[in-house]
Amino acid sequence: MRAVIPFKKSNAKSRLSPLLTDKEREEFAMAMLSDVAGTLVSSGCFEIVDILSTSVIDFEGANIVLANSGLNEALNEYLEKMSSHSLNEPVLIVMADIPLVSIKNIRDITASRSDVVIAPGRMGGTNAIFIRDPSRFRVDYYGASFLKHRDIAQNNGLVVEVFDSFNVSTDIDEVADIAEVLIHGTGRAAGCLKRLGFTLSGNGGRLGVNRT
Amino acid sequence: MRAVIPFKKSNAKSRLSPLLTDKEREEFAMAMLSDVAGTLVSSGCFEIVDILSTSVIDFEGANIVLANSGLNEALNEYLEKMSSHSLNEPVLIVMADIPLVSIKNIRDITASRSDVVIAPGRMGGTNAIFIRDPSRFRVDYYGASFLKHRDIAQNNGLVVEVFDSFNVSTDIDEVADIAEVLIHGTGRAAGCLKRLGFTLSGNGGRLGVNRT
Repeated sequence: MRAVIPFKKSNAKSRLSPLLTDKEREEFAMAMLSDVAGTLVSSGCFEIVDILSTSVIDFEGANIVLANSGLNEALNEYLEKMSSHSLNEPVLIVMADIPLVSIKNIRDITASRSDVVIAPGRMGGTNAIFIRDPSRFRVDYYGASFLKHRDIAQNNGLVVEVFDSFNVSTDIDEVADIAEVLIHGTGRAAGCLKRLGFTLSGNGGRLGVNRT
Repeated sequence: MRAVIPFKKSNAKSRLSPLLTDKEREEFAMAMLSDVAGTLVSSGCFEIVDILSTSVIDFEGANIVLANSGLNEALNEYLEKMSSHSLNEPVLIVMADIPLVSIKNIRDITASRSDVVIAPGRMGGTNAIFIRDPSRFRVDYYGASFLKHRDIAQNNGLVVEVFDSFNVSTDIDEVADIAEVLIHGTGRAAGCLKRLGFTLSGNGGRLGVNRT
């Protein structure tokens, strides 16, 4: 079984630019990647953990596979290559910006007997998708990809399961999301934010983040 | 075992006012309450399902308990009354605005052997909390209530479990949240939105909602 994390380092997490400089955003993106890849490796579920990256990155514990095209093209080429090389083993695609994902989440998703397991992100996203037979599935990210992936699977006669997890659903895109990492995170992404001076703000009312 | 849902009908869901009239907001709030209360009743886990309401409402399938004070005061009075009347049985407090909550979620939370089970909402909230011994716990909502509840439990020597669920974490407060109900909902809240003319918008890019 394999896991693959698509990753873009350059201009990563642009919606966090009101709060973080370019360099800090890269650092934070790498910390989140490190949490996700570390969890995949530690789960013990995979022979191979690949990072599908648009640039050369220095990263220990996972294979870097270079990919120049867009997210869908890169992942579909990856799936196609697996199918054609008689390496047609199950694959879990995990987004790089879900630092709250736990080892238990990964074990539970991959223990499913369904053909396809989709863990939704907020606003219709797909934060993790487990594909038992890569020769029978292609991804279609952006927009309501959760609905698109469910339809693709069903149209191919595959049994779909929805994986219900707050941890996996919590992708860190916007300034408000930083609070989720400060509240629930225990890994490198949370450490990175604390080192950069972020704390929770708001007493009693609506929650936010402060930077000292 | 009991379940209790705090509910405020008048000026409910004020942050949805850019999209819904007062009357529509009340209707939508009642539809969400109906989904949540219906799920609690159908779970078969509870002898009693109470709705702690600030006004008289017409609702079938659950008891209406009138409460005039704020959320914390009303719930803590409720917990205190349970402790003092030798009705000190486990209680599950569930927010009225989480229409995606499933029967499985309710069964899983109440099957826990921990003293307190907290299901986080987004941005530090507490969307469901299971309290095995109401005489040993008081609630403190608003702000980062997830952290406050965890601390209260731990300071009282109680074993805490965090319940990891996207369904339970998805509270419907703001305009963007409407999309979550349209994407994942199958109950009355989703039906209400569709009847009011809401559809998903955005093709390929960021998702939103339209009203026809």
